[in-house]
Amino acid sequence: SAPQDLDLQILETVMGQLSASRIRDNLRELSRDPHLATSPRDEDLVQLLLQRWRDPESGLDSAEASKYEVLLSFPSQEQPNLVHVVGPTGDIIYSCRQTEENLTGEQGGPDVVQPYAAYAPPGTPQGLLVYANRGSEEDFKELQTQGINLEGTIALTRYGGVGRGAKAVNAAKHGVAGVLVYTDPADINDGLSSSSETFPNSWYLPPSGVERGSYYEYFGDPLTPYLPAIPSSFRLDLANVSGFPPIPTQPIGFQDARDLLCNLSGTLAPTTWQGALGCSYRLGPGFRPDGGFPADSQVNVSVHNRLELRNSSNVLGIIRGAVEPDRYVLYGNHRDSWVHGAVDPSSGTAVLLELSRVLGTLLKKGTWRPRRSIVFASWGAEEFGLIGSTEFTEEFFNKLQERTVAYINVDISVFANATLRVQGTPPVQSVVFSATKEIRSPGPGDLSIYDNWIRYFNRSSPVYGLVPSLGSLGAGSDYAPFIHFLGISSMDLAYTYDRSKTSARIYPTYHTAFDTFDYVDKFLDPGFSSHQAVAQTAGSVILRLSDSFFLPLNVSDYSETLRSFLQAAQQELEALLEQHSISLGPLVTAVEKFDAEAAALGEHISTLQKGSPDPLQVRMLNDQLMLLERTFLNPRAFPEERYYSHVLWAPRTGSVATFPGLSNACSRARDTAPGSEAWAEVQRQISIVVMALEGAAATLRPVADL
Amino acid sequence: SAPQDLDLQILETVMGQLSASRIRDNLRELSRDPHLATSPRDEDLVQLLLQRWRDPESGLDSAEASKYEVLLSFPSQEQPNLVHVVGPTGDIIYSCRQTEENLTGEQGGPDVVQPYAAYAPPGTPQGLLVYANRGSEEDFKELQTQGINLEGTIALTRYGGVGRGAKAVNAAKHGVAGVLVYTDPADINDGLSSSSETFPNSWYLPPSGVERGSYYEYFGDPLTPYLPAIPSSFRLDLANVSGFPPIPTQPIGFQDARDLLCNLSGTLAPTTWQGALGCSYRLGPGFRPDGGFPADSQVNVSVHNRLELRNSSNVLGIIRGAVEPDRYVLYGNHRDSWVHGAVDPSSGTAVLLELSRVLGTLLKKGTWRPRRSIVFASWGAEEFGLIGSTEFTEEFFNKLQERTVAYINVDISVFANATLRVQGTPPVQSVVFSATKEIRSPGPGDLSIYDNWIRYFNRSSPVYGLVPSLGSLGAGSDYAPFIHFLGISSMDLAYTYDRSKTSARIYPTYHTAFDTFDYVDKFLDPGFSSHQAVAQTAGSVILRLSDSFFLPLNVSDYSETLRSFLQAAQQELEALLEQHSISLGPLVTAVEKFDAEAAALGEHISTLQKGSPDPLQVRMLNDQLMLLERTFLNPRAFPEERYYSHVLWAPRTGSVATFPGLSNACSRARDTAPGSEAWAEVQRQISIVVMALEGAAATLRPVADL
Ligand SMILES: [Ca+2]
Ligand SMILES: [Ca+2]
Ligand SMILES: [Zn+2]
Ligand SMILES: [Zn+2]
Ligand SMILES: [Zn+2]
Ligand SMILES: [Zn+2]
Repeated sequence: SAPQDLDLQILETVMGQLSASRIRDNLRELSRDPHLATSPRDEDLVQLLLQRWRDPESGLDSAEASKYEVLLSFPSQEQPNLVHVVGPTGDIIYSCRQTEENLTGEQGGPDVVQPYAAYAPPGTPQGLLVYANRGSEEDFKELQTQGINLEGTIALTRYGGVGRGAKAVNAAKHGVAGVLVYTDPADINDGLSSSSETFPNSWYLPPSGVERGSYYEYFGDPLTPYLPAIPSSFRLDLANVSGFPPIPTQPIGFQDARDLLCNLSGTLAPTTWQGALGCSYRLGPGFRPDGGFPADSQVNVSVHNRLELRNSSNVLGIIRGAVEPDRYVLYGNHRDSWVHGAVDPSSGTAVLLELSRVLGTLLKKGTWRPRRSIVFASWGAEEFGLIGSTEFTEEFFNKLQERTVAYINVDISVFANATLRVQGTPPVQSVVFSATKEIRSPGPGDLSIYDNWIRYFNRSSPVYGLVPSLGSLGAGSDYAPFIHFLGISSMDLAYTYDRSKTSARIYPTYHTAFDTFDYVDKFLDPGFSSHQAVAQTAGSVILRLSDSFFLPLNVSDYSETLRSFLQAAQQELEALLEQHSISLGPLVTAVEKFDAEAAALGEHISTLQKGSPDPLQVRMLNDQLMLLERTFLNPRAFPEERYYSHVLWAPRTGSVATFPGLSNACSRARDTAPGSEAWAEVQRQISIVVMALEGAAATLRPVADL
Repeated sequence: SAPQDLDLQILETVMGQLSASRIRDNLRELSRDPHLATSPRDEDLVQLLLQRWRDPESGLDSAEASKYEVLLSFPSQEQPNLVHVVGPTGDIIYSCRQTEENLTGEQGGPDVVQPYAAYAPPGTPQGLLVYANRGSEEDFKELQTQGINLEGTIALTRYGGVGRGAKAVNAAKHGVAGVLVYTDPADINDGLSSSSETFPNSWYLPPSGVERGSYYEYFGDPLTPYLPAIPSSFRLDLANVSGFPPIPTQPIGFQDARDLLCNLSGTLAPTTWQGALGCSYRLGPGFRPDGGFPADSQVNVSVHNRLELRNSSNVLGIIRGAVEPDRYVLYGNHRDSWVHGAVDPSSGTAVLLELSRVLGTLLKKGTWRPRRSIVFASWGAEEFGLIGSTEFTEEFFNKLQERTVAYINVDISVFANATLRVQGTPPVQSVVFSATKEIRSPGPGDLSIYDNWIRYFNRSSPVYGLVPSLGSLGAGSDYAPFIHFLGISSMDLAYTYDRSKTSARIYPTYHTAFDTFDYVDKFLDPGFSSHQAVAQTAGSVILRLSDSFFLPLNVSDYSETLRSFLQAAQQELEALLEQHSISLGPLVTAVEKFDAEAAALGEHISTLQKGSPDPLQVRMLNDQLMLLERTFLNPRAFPEERYYSHVLWAPRTGSVATFPGLSNACSRARDTAPGSEAWAEVQRQISIVVMALEGAAATLRPVADL
C-alpha cells in the first residue's frame, strides 16, 4: 500500500473549519482577566487548556501540565514604585502616576500589575534629571561630550534602539543613579498624543499607558542557566547572577514624561533625540528656572521590586503520529501576559486553541491521524524572559534535538491587518510558500496570502526571482531556545502592518493595561479575519510538516544565506583581512561544497519522488533534512553568550551583514594591533564557520560516502 | 518478505574464515619496519591499507585516506638527547645510552627513533640527582617532608602511578629543573633484570629498553582543540598551548637508571619506593661519596626535542549497508607505532586487515551485504595523543553522533594469551556476551571465550549472577573521543594476562625497539590463536551490530552502573552531604525513573520481537537504543576538562566510586567551609547527573508520551 502522505482533502477540510468567530470567542475568554505569569488566572488558563486538550470530542491524545520553579520579579503591592519631583526643601512637588488611567473599566483592580521594570533592583536614588535619548552607549557618550556630569543623576530615556536592560547598564557605567523609561508618541503613536486621538478613541497609546517588560539581559530562569528549573536543581547564588539592571529603573507614561522632559534646562538635545511631546527636548541636568519646577529640584525614583521563586506551568498536548510518532512537529505560544494581554499573547493562544480544536475533532472522529506527532505547547513566564520554553529545552535537550522536525511559534498573531510576516530559517521558507499560495488573503481583492505578502516584504532571489522575504529569528519570543540552543528549524508567524501607514515600533498598547479584547475587536482585527489567516497558515504548515511523506524542508535554500553572508564578507572585509594574512578562501570552498551537496541531494530527492521509495529510505533522507540545522550549532563558538550556539544566527553587533561571529570579531579587532588576540579570534571564527559548513555538507552527502 | 536480520550461517562462515596464519602474515608485513607517525613507512602503510581495502576480490565498497596537519614532537637527529653525569670539574664522567642495544638487528638504523619524551621542552638543566619514586604529588611532598631541597635538582622517577606528563608537572611545582623516567624491573619484569633473563631470551624488557611515549596531558592535536586540524584551521599560538611538560624530561633504560640510582646518597627511600635494581634506593640529593661518582657530581639532561607540523593520515573504508546505510558500525585502530610496533598497534591492525579481508570477500562475491554500514578506520598519530581519531571526531561531530551505532577499538589485540579483556559501556555488554559464548577459547580445555573469560574477570551482577566483568573506558586508545566527546557506545577488545602469573604493568617491551614480530611470534602468541580469538570476537560483535534487525544494545544494563554509583554515594557521601544540606533524594528518584523506563522498554522490545514489526517501527526503537548513550553527554559539565563530557565516565580523581563529577567535587569541597563555592559545585554536579538521568529516561519512554 502507498505510504501515508499529505492528504489535500484533509488539508482543505482543516482550512475550511478554522473559524474566525471561534477565535474571537477564545480571545474573549483568554483575555477576560489579567493573567500575569504564575497568577491565579494564569493557573486557571492552564486548566482551561487542559480541559480543551482533553476534550473527548475535540481534544488531543493526551495533555499534561508541568511546573518549573523560577525566579520572577514583581513590584510590591504594599510599597508601590514611585517617581517624584522633590523641591529644594525636600518636599514632593510632583508625582508620576502609579497606575494607568482607568479608561475602559479594565485598568483598575488588584490584578492589574503596576507598571514596572522586571528584575530592576530596589532602591531610591535621587538626583538631577538628564535626558539620554534611547540610553545607548553612544547616547551617554554624547552627553559626556556635551560636558554634562552624569554622576548621581536620574536619566530619562525612551524605549527603542537598545534592549530594555541595556539602558541601565549603559547609564550605570557613567555614574547615573536611576533610570526612567517612557514611550515617545513619535515612536509609537505616529506623533499623536492627546486623549481624544488615543485609545479608546483609536488604536494609539493613551497618555498614561506604560510599557512593562523584562529588563533581564539573557533568557531562561536567571538562577538555573543550562539546568532545568526543577525544584531540586542547583541554583546560582544571587550574588553570582549577571544580567539584571545594575540600578533602579522605572517605566512611566508619556504624559508624565512630558512634564519632566519639557521642563528640563541645559543644551538643546540633538535633532534625532527630539520627539513628539510638543516641546523642545533639552539635556538637563536639572529643570529650567522658568519651568514648572524650581530649578534645583531633583527627581526621586523609588523602586521596591522583589525577586520571588514561583511555580510556572507549561502545558503540553500531543497528537500521536500514526507512522513516525518519534518525529515531532512542535507548535507553541506563551500563555502569560503582563495585564489582559489580548494581543500579547492571547491572540496567538486563541489561534492555537482553534487549531487544536479542528485537528482534535478530526482525530477524535477517526477521520485523520498525522504521519508524525504534533505537539502543542503553552509556555509559562515568557514575559520574564522566555522562561517556560527555555526550561523545557533544557530538560529535554537530547530528545528534542534528535526528534523535532520544526518549531512553529505564533505569539502575537495579529499586530495589524495588512500582511503576513514570517521570521524563520531558510529550510522552512518553501513550506510557508506552499501553504500561503493556497490560502486566500483576508484583505480586499482576491489575492492569496502569498501574493499579498510579496507586496509588503520581498526580495530578489538569485534562484527564484522575486519572492516574499523572511526575517531572521532574534530572541523576541519562545522560538529563541529552539533555534539558538537546540538548532531546530523554526519560524514565527503573524499578521502585521502596512509600514507606509504607521511608523509605530509595535502595536501601541503593547505590554500596557490597554491591550484588551475590545482593543483587538474594534481596532486591530474587527471580524478576526487576520487571526483566521494566521490560523490557516499555521495549520497548513503544521499539516504539511506532519503529514508529508517527504519532509518539506528545503535545505538547499540555505545556500542563498551562505552566499549572501560570504559576499558581504568578501566585499566589506576581505581587504582588511588580507592585511592581517587572513584568507576567506576556505570559507569560499566550504560554501561551494555546501551548495554542491545540497544540489545533489535535491536531485536525489527528485529521483526518489518519481519512484515508489521504501519508507525506510525516505526516513533516512528526512533525517538528513531534519538534522541539517543541527550541524550549524557549536556550543563553543560564542563563550560570552548564553544559549546562542547557532553559528549563522547568533546576535550580530558588527556592522557587516555576514556570519555573526566573523562580523563581531572583526568589529572588535579593527582597532587592535596586528597579531593581537582579537585578530586571532577573527581567524578562529572563520574556522568555526568553515567547520560548521563542512559538517553540514557532510550531512547532506550520500550517507554511505566517506 | 522478512526484514534482513543477522544470518547465523554468514556469522559461522566469517568465524571459520578468520585465519591465524593470515593474521601472522599481516603482522610480519605491518611490523617489518619502524613506522612512526607521518614517517615514510607510515605513509607506505596507508597505501597498503588502501590497496587491501580497494582490492576487487577482497576489498570494501570504497576506501579513502585523508590528512590532518598536526603538531608532533621529535628528537633532533643532529643533536640527540643526552643524559650525563658531570664531575666536580665539569667533565663528563658518565653517559646514559642514546639508543637501545641492537640485540636482534632491528634496534639500529635511522628509522629507530631515539627514546624521548614527546612534547617535553628542549633545555639542558643540570643539578644534583634526587629519586622521586613515581613522581606523584605525594611523592614530591614526601621528599619535601624529608627536608630535601628540590630547587634546581634533576628528579629520577619510574613509570607508573601517574601519567607520563604529570611527573614533570608535579616536579616543576617544587623547583625541579629536569626529569628522568625509567621502567623499574619490579614493575615490568617481575623483578628480573639480567640480559640472560630478558628479550631475546624471554618476553621481559632488556636492560637498555626504554619506553617512549607522549607526555602531552590532553589528547587531540595540541594546536586545534575542538577544531579539525585541516590546513586552514585556526591554530593556537604556542604561548597559549597548555598541557606540555613544563621542564625537560627524558626516559632512560633501567641499566642506566641503576647506575644513577644505586649511587645516590641521602636517606633510605620508603619501602614502597624500593624496586628491583638490586640495591637500596636512596633519595639523594646527589651521589654518595663511596659510590661510582664523586659526591658532588651533577646530572646533566640535554633535551633537543622539536615541535613540527606534520601531515598525518587516517584511512577509512566502508561496506555500505543494504537497508540502513546511514547507520554506522565503526571499527578502528591506530596505524602509527613508536618503532616497529608489532604489538602496539600492529597486532590490532593485523586483525583489522584479516576481518576486512573476510568480510570484503563475502561482499565482493555477492554472498552478503550488511544491513547497516560498517566503517573501518586506521587512525594516524595515536601515539602522540589519539590525534587522528580525535581530529576525525571534530571534523564529523554531528554526522557521527547522529548515525553511529557503536565504536569498536582493537589496538593491542594481544597482551598475552590467558583471557579476553573488554572495556566498554554497559549497552555493549550483552552483544559481547552473545558473541563470546559462541567462540571457542584458544587455551587448553574446550571452553568458550566467555567461559574462559569469566575465570579471570568476573563480578556478581544483581541481575545476571556471576558474569565476566567489563572494565571502564579511560583514554588509553582511540575510543576516547568516541565515548567521551561524542557519547557513542564503545568498546576496546584484547587478549591479556593471567594476573597471577605476572605483575607487569603492561607487556614488557611496550613502546620500545624490542616490540618486534619475533617478540610476538616467539613469546606473546606463538601460533597466533589469541589474535584469531580477538578477530573472531570483534567480527562477531561487528556482524551482530551491523546485521541484527533489532540493535543488540541492552540499555537496561546501565541500571547496574547507576545503582552502584548511587550506592557508593549513599554509603560514603550521604552523611557528609546532609551536613551541608545537600540531598541525594533527586538522584535516587532519577535512578529509579531510569530503571523503570529501561525495564518498560525491554518489555516493549520483547513484545515487538514476538510479532512481525514494521521496519520503521524497529528503526524508531533502534534509534532510542543507539541514542541513549548521547543523553549522558553534557558539554558544560566539566569546564576544566577537554573533550570529556560524558557525565558517567569522565575521569574520577575523588576516591568514592560514584558519578565522577560528584566524586571529584566532594573531594575538593571536603576541606572547605560550609557555603563555599566548592560545596555549590557539589550541588551543581548532582543536578547535572539528575538532568542526564532524567533526560535518558525521557529518551527511553514511549516516543509519543509527553
Ligand atoms: Ca534553567
Ligand atoms: Ca583538533
Ligand atoms: Zn508575547
Ligand atoms: Zn510580550
Ligand atoms: Zn596503541
Ligand atoms: Zn602505544
